[in-house]
Amino acid sequence: MSKGITSKNEDYSQWYNDIVIKADLAEHSSVKGCMVIKPYGYSIWEKMQAVLDQKFKDTGHSNAYFPLFIPKSFFSKEASHVEGFATECAVVTHYRLKNDGNGNIIVDETAKLEEELIVRPTSETIIWNTYKGWIQSYRDLPILVNQWANVVRWEMRTRLFLRTTEFLWQEGHTAHATADEAIEETKKMLDVYADFAEKWMAVPVVKGVKTPNERFAGALDTYCIEALMQDGKALQAGTSHFLGQNFAKAFDVKFTSKEGKLDHVWASSWGVSTRLMGALIMAHSDDAGLVLPPKLAPIQVVIVPIYKHDEELQKITAFADELMSKLKRMGVSVKYDDRDTQRPGFKFAEYELKGVPLRIAIGARDMENGTAELARRDTREKQTVIQDGLEIHIVQLLEEIQENIYKKALGFRDEHITEANSYEEFKELLDGKAGFIAAHWDGTPETEQKIKEETKATIRCVPLGNKLEDGLCIYSGKPSKQRVLFARAY
Amino acid sequence: MSKGITSKNEDYSQWYNDIVIKADLAEHSSVKGCMVIKPYGYSIWEKMQAVLDQKFKDTGHSNAYFPLFIPKSFFSKEASHVEGFATECAVVTHYRLKNDGNGNIIVDETAKLEEELIVRPTSETIIWNTYKGWIQSYRDLPILVNQWANVVRWEMRTRLFLRTTEFLWQEGHTAHATADEAIEETKKMLDVYADFAEKWMAVPVVKGVKTPNERFAGALDTYCIEALMQDGKALQAGTSHFLGQNFAKAFDVKFTSKEGKLDHVWASSWGVSTRLMGALIMAHSDDAGLVLPPKLAPIQVVIVPIYKHDEELQKITAFADELMSKLKRMGVSVKYDDRDTQRPGFKFAEYELKGVPLRIAIGARDMENGTAELARRDTREKQTVIQDGLEIHIVQLLEEIQENIYKKALGFRDEHITEANSYEEFKELLDGKAGFIAAHWDGTPETEQKIKEETKATIRCVPLGNKLEDGLCIYSGKPSKQRVLFARAY
Repeated sequence: MSKGITSKNEDYSQWYNDIVIKADLAEHSSVKGCMVIKPYGYSIWEKMQAVLDQKFKDTGHSNAYFPLFIPKSFFSKEASHVEGFATECAVVTHYRLKNDGNGNIIVDETAKLEEELIVRPTSETIIWNTYKGWIQSYRDLPILVNQWANVVRWEMRTRLFLRTTEFLWQEGHTAHATADEAIEETKKMLDVYADFAEKWMAVPVVKGVKTPNERFAGALDTYCIEALMQDGKALQAGTSHFLGQNFAKAFDVKFTSKEGKLDHVWASSWGVSTRLMGALIMAHSDDAGLVLPPKLAPIQVVIVPIYKHDEELQKITAFADELMSKLKRMGVSVKYDDRDTQRPGFKFAEYELKGVPLRIAIGARDMENGTAELARRDTREKQTVIQDGLEIHIVQLLEEIQENIYKKALGFRDEHITEANSYEEFKELLDGKAGFIAAHWDGTPETEQKIKEETKATIRCVPLGNKLEDGLCIYSGKPSKQRVLFARAY
Repeated sequence: MSKGITSKNEDYSQWYNDIVIKADLAEHSSVKGCMVIKPYGYSIWEKMQAVLDQKFKDTGHSNAYFPLFIPKSFFSKEASHVEGFATECAVVTHYRLKNDGNGNIIVDETAKLEEELIVRPTSETIIWNTYKGWIQSYRDLPILVNQWANVVRWEMRTRLFLRTTEFLWQEGHTAHATADEAIEETKKMLDVYADFAEKWMAVPVVKGVKTPNERFAGALDTYCIEALMQDGKALQAGTSHFLGQNFAKAFDVKFTSKEGKLDHVWASSWGVSTRLMGALIMAHSDDAGLVLPPKLAPIQVVIVPIYKHDEELQKITAFADELMSKLKRMGVSVKYDDRDTQRPGFKFAEYELKGVPLRIAIGARDMENGTAELARRDTREKQTVIQDGLEIHIVQLLEEIQENIYKKALGFRDEHITEANSYEEFKELLDGKAGFIAAHWDGTPETEQKIKEETKATIRCVPLGNKLEDGLCIYSGKPSKQRVLFARAY
């Protein structure tokens, strides 16, 4: 098959789009800014969901579901929250259409809502309005709830998975008796995200805290995991917010402590979205298509028979059937592609495009010799191995591939953290696609904003456990106590 | 604990609401007609989803995701479809809010959409608009896709789970080369739903086909499963539609057949929703609270220690720990409730309310005698059993409970299918809460409509494999070839 994927080095952005479209992951819909997640793309998202959901449950959380719509007045209750989201809201104003008598379907103006409803861009307000009814005493705390849902933020410039008007995500919303507990929760969930990114997605991340400019609208602190893409741009892969008592105060949620004192409740919220799909695609793929880490690949192994006659096929199929049942018992997802409408070369290219980690080709000569040919997607290396004990070799190889993909991404990331000691150097590094740039900053929003305007680079985070070091801000020359990580970002 | 559940016989409707609220399943939100599904209720829905999702995958379907919003013009393309849904649509008209300068958040009139967007009440139109790009040849067929999503239908009178403005559901949308294949798919998915209702929910259902009056807007045939609630009212628990070529024609989706002919594609769609939660609750519960079939119970077994001293508790806990690990290995979900803030009696009432199928109480004397007390939720019977081999006894008992709950519901349903041979008899039976009434009908929409207006009873379905029998319509006296099932319904 002709893949028609633009080379990564030629046009990274087009390369990304080509992979998303040609690997059948997603496509633009007829609704501006909204995507269709196609079955193959969705099956990867389902694997991500399953792992994350289990991690949330293992850390004591339950799922629930809150309304899609938020009354406009709820937004206004937390001042910085409404400021952050008001300019990108889908607003429901009517609840009926009608036929105008000439066969045209129009909005029925007699069915206008008294108060407009906002399609949730995030659910803090509707959830804290609900929690008010759930919390009276310390005995009702903590509340550890997560929601899997769709949200809408009206984006003017969209990109499949990375920035879409509607996207899928999970949002955890927790309530606690003390600030310490809420902060502990915030950090715990950041660790869950980092673990997921590194162990499952094979994407190394920097854990850090956002500057006030980049904080979630309504948070006291936003923690984040930042990943690096192959073009040297950063991607925020997940955030966990310490909300203090902001939403509890906005919605008047108080509890009686063990000591009988009345106080506002402390909160966290945290989320990851279908944006992770974008990170997964961009972190590992190459000019032949998608590269998937085995742990998130819907098909981990594909077996392609190579034969001339039916008799040859029958022998190969008998062997493949046995191998597949062994692999399935070992928890490996495997597909046998014996379509007679396509040639092996076409199939090889197709599975490369779709990122299947391991391809096994078995021909008539292999059956005579008791061998099989394995082709790794990550290194594109081939090896001929013996059929005896093949299933064990495959399981080990999948683990090796998972590790190799991670190590490659980690090596790339580590090579792309560079210190800059002057603004000139900073700008040169940026233009050279150097990745994360560690530089001194005077700590003011004004400097951060100016650097952003002049270079399009933002402070991605102040890394957790950051080394303290005296220095001078690259922009203002004022004293600084630590370097922060800058980058251009998705 | 004081349950405060209204008696079922006193006020069935209030009884239902009391159970939903007091068992922590769901509650009304501040958004008119929208509910909050609470963690315990959602955990039951998650179990339903997991089982259904596996059944869909086992029958060859994949999940995907399509936009929440549907352009208004898409609706108008299928005439009966728009007629069916236009009067209950949430309409998005603007994409921005703003501060009016006096601190009020208002809709920004400069951000008005050129074309209004409808929040999906169902996704046939947006999906068939998408399928147009996916289908060229018979090789692209069948398309077997399902979506788990939220949908919105603006309901004036809502009831938790049974009828809410926003609800959660799955909607399958399939495309086929021939009418026969599409019909086969339609019926296959009806069987999947019936199997799920009976084997998992323990709710017996009648499989049938809807009359034209009750068909899905845009379908040629609507198949359904109809369940009977304890108040003698029917509940439509799932539908599967044969859509013919209606949506393919509306969205111009054609394919080239093997023979090289161009034709429109054939379609089915099918769905079940959080309404199933309502059916589950109403079918089995009693005045003590929820009754859950073990296969869908988030907690299947609860162990409550009964002790005076810590020493007694320690012995019981050691035994319980061992029992729990045995049960977990056998796939049983079990909870140990050793809270010292509540008395056993309070706990017993709480787990009855929440429908936990089996409760185990273990006291100091039990530890001496090597016994335990089991209490079944379905029959409320208690038995003292020996501790030796208890885990095997429990697994068998859970199966027995599942079966008993189904048999009880089946017995009730079978007693509540009655033939009526005159309109007088028909009305008497209805008022006597007789359940399904099998009666002759002349086959006209007019008669059906008049019976509905006069009695609030509708034709629930023409049962599949219905016996043919000459008779006279109970309303018009005109000749009829078969009885159909009438009932008042949710």
